[in-house]
Amino acid sequence: MNDPTKALADDGLAPWRSPLARALHRNRALAYARYLQLATVRADGRPANRTVVFRGFVDTLSEKNLLKFVSDRRSQKMLQLESQAWAEACWYFPKTREQFRLSGRMLVVGQAQTRPQQQPATQQPETQHRLAAERQTTWQNLSDNARSQFYWPEPGAPCQPSADFQPVTIDDLHPPETFCLLLFNLDRVDHLELRGEPQNRFLYTKNKNQAWSCQSVNP
Amino acid sequence: MNDPTKALADDGLAPWRSPLARALHRNRALAYARYLQLATVRADGRPANRTVVFRGFVDTLSEKNLLKFVSDRRSQKMLQLESQAWAEACWYFPKTREQFRLSGRMLVVGQAQTRPQQQPATQQPETQHRLAAERQTTWQNLSDNARSQFYWPEPGAPCQPSADFQPVTIDDLHPPETFCLLLFNLDRVDHLELRGEPQNRFLYTKNKNQAWSCQSVNP
Repeated sequence: MNDPTKALADDGLAPWRSPLARALHRNRALAYARYLQLATVRADGRPANRTVVFRGFVDTLSEKNLLKFVSDRRSQKMLQLESQAWAEACWYFPKTREQFRLSGRMLVVGQAQTRPQQQPATQQPETQHRLAAERQTTWQNLSDNARSQFYWPEPGAPCQPSADFQPVTIDDLHPPETFCLLLFNLDRVDHLELRGEPQNRFLYTKNKNQAWSCQSVNP
Repeated sequence: MNDPTKALADDGLAPWRSPLARALHRNRALAYARYLQLATVRADGRPANRTVVFRGFVDTLSEKNLLKFVSDRRSQKMLQLESQAWAEACWYFPKTREQFRLSGRMLVVGQAQTRPQQQPATQQPETQHRLAAERQTTWQNLSDNARSQFYWPEPGAPCQPSADFQPVTIDDLHPPETFCLLLFNLDRVDHLELRGEPQNRFLYTKNKNQAWSCQSVNP
């Protein structure tokens, strides 16, 4: 294995992609190795934390190395991300005993992004188009089980008769407006290998010129 | 199984203790089922998130149902908790496919607590004594491996020669001043069972009179 402190990629892939891909591969037998915990900040300043499912990387936009998640527009985390886009995910891989702490800003792609009149001035129509396409593809790739949840009653509201949770007719081509794509744009990755002797810990940081560097730090 | 919405205990144990104990028991074959992710807030307002090890409950203080963790005084989370005691832990149990989101305030018990002259005016000497005793017992119950980390060089600092991480002579009776006990005092627990049909989600909240209640909410 190469020295990760020198593994600064010039193919557009961030240097932490390689150890993360390795961890995903080595833990692939565990379905829940694709689950990670995402922390955000509530309106009152308290932290929030919940499990989310990793849906792959997005490397087709001008900004590469984005981690992809999905979320219901009606969930609390959407409110939190609206007022504070910073998030930190903690990803523990049980088999290889390593942890990635991923810190950055979350971009929310909802149905609004597909409507040109609601475009933020800062986003080019071309970017808008790609985001909408990515949202639609992600929807199409979900299981029916995962898709059906976006038609359920409002998450977190007092419990309603279970009749409301019965399977619905799912439009497997066009996502409902509750369906949002989350794209996680990192500026800091903290990788800890518990199996080392003593342990290995690498800190990757992105500077203002969008260049990544890596430093070996004490565990 | 009883209806959890009615399981309001009168033995001093919070009603979420029973489902959490059940999850711990049913997942006991997985060592990492005792690992959870703890979110705090950084000085700049960004969230932080890392894996911590559950060290049991503390029910011997005036406030019961405290979750116990340990931490190095030199770690970033101690700085974060000093200025903002609110935290949220996310605990996913892989075998039973359920999640507990635990939200509350973290009490830090360091060496200072054992010195009477540094007592906060609000804490009784009796409480001080019990906290110091709990800290010492916890230290004594750690493995040598876990204890040795508190003698290592500063966490997160640029990497130092691995000679510094060699086994040290450990005082297994008296914790070093780097050793801190964290006691997590919850006011909100969100329990999600993914295996239900559709899924079950229970929200436990503690009111101003310290009484817990439970509500069934939409997943």
